[in-house]
Amino acid sequence: MLLEPICFKPIGVVEDGIPRPGEPQRPRSRYEKISIIRIFDEYVEALKGLEDYSHIIVLYWMHEEKRYIPRLKPWGMERYPEVGIFATRFPPRPNPIGVTVVELLAIEENRLRVKGLDAWTGSPVLDIKPYDYYDIVRNPRIPWWAEEEWKRNSIEKNYKVIAPWLGPAQA
Amino acid sequence: MLLEPICFKPIGVVEDGIPRPGEPQRPRSRYEKISIIRIFDEYVEALKGLEDYSHIIVLYWMHEEKRYIPRLKPWGMERYPEVGIFATRFPPRPNPIGVTVVELLAIEENRLRVKGLDAWTGSPVLDIKPYDYYDIVRNPRIPWWAEEEWKRNSIEKNYKVIAPWLGPAQA
Repeated sequence: MLLEPICFKPIGVVEDGIPRPGEPQRPRSRYEKISIIRIFDEYVEALKGLEDYSHIIVLYWMHEEKRYIPRLKPWGMERYPEVGIFATRFPPRPNPIGVTVVELLAIEENRLRVKGLDAWTGSPVLDIKPYDYYDIVRNPRIPWWAEEEWKRNSIEKNYKVIAPWLGPAQA
Repeated sequence: MLLEPICFKPIGVVEDGIPRPGEPQRPRSRYEKISIIRIFDEYVEALKGLEDYSHIIVLYWMHEEKRYIPRLKPWGMERYPEVGIFATRFPPRPNPIGVTVVELLAIEENRLRVKGLDAWTGSPVLDIKPYDYYDIVRNPRIPWWAEEEWKRNSIEKNYKVIAPWLGPAQA
């Protein structure tokens, strides 16, 4: 079984995504960025009813990531502990699949307008799933460095205004 | 780009998963079932620090699903509307990748003990991600049929007791 290749085909592509490093960073945060996902024609019929969800989960291939880095310091910060790549959401993982919860703003035939996607333009999209109650952990435990990063970001980038639906139940 | 194959290799396997249809259903709910994921030796170093999270996201390949069903009635229920497969979490999708939020009970060297996984024994695991505050939508909008199913399940299966972390903020 382990030698069997696991291959997928894209069902769409990120037509307008977040800027790559070095490109101008227009919005302060990805939560201000509206991205466009184009779904390939043959899969458009499978979108029916998706508009009844406020949020969706986008699975995409981080296709420009070629490295595997087993351990790293989050954001290269000296004061943070070295952790395994599976304890982070960073791209250099064995299988660079991005899983991101986004707000679904509109479906226009074969295009999804979403807010909060962290994929670059050109990223192949592998799947679209509705965000359901089963995906909510009201108050998860996360490590101190992730908590610190969340707090800093949510203040600096004003998540309360730009992504008011986000975060733990008792934030 | 679209002709480029997208191939992945498993980083582990579900050693003890939920019963297949027809097999005896021991626990009432997958939230009572404790599953075991074995991570392959070469990737064990990448787990460091994962134990500081209460919940993780498991990406696995639904490797026995060979169909693509563009539209269906959820759970085959006549009273529910026909919706596209992308508006559901059912397996017969173009790329059958499962994404499931589970409670992380313990890490024992190369094995993860988790609660709430809906994968069959033998499913190849593609990625492990920590569940972070960015994955929480406190009160998402979902369609009426999904809401109905949630309510029925959460009462029948007693989610309040077996998965008290689960569900919308104002449930």
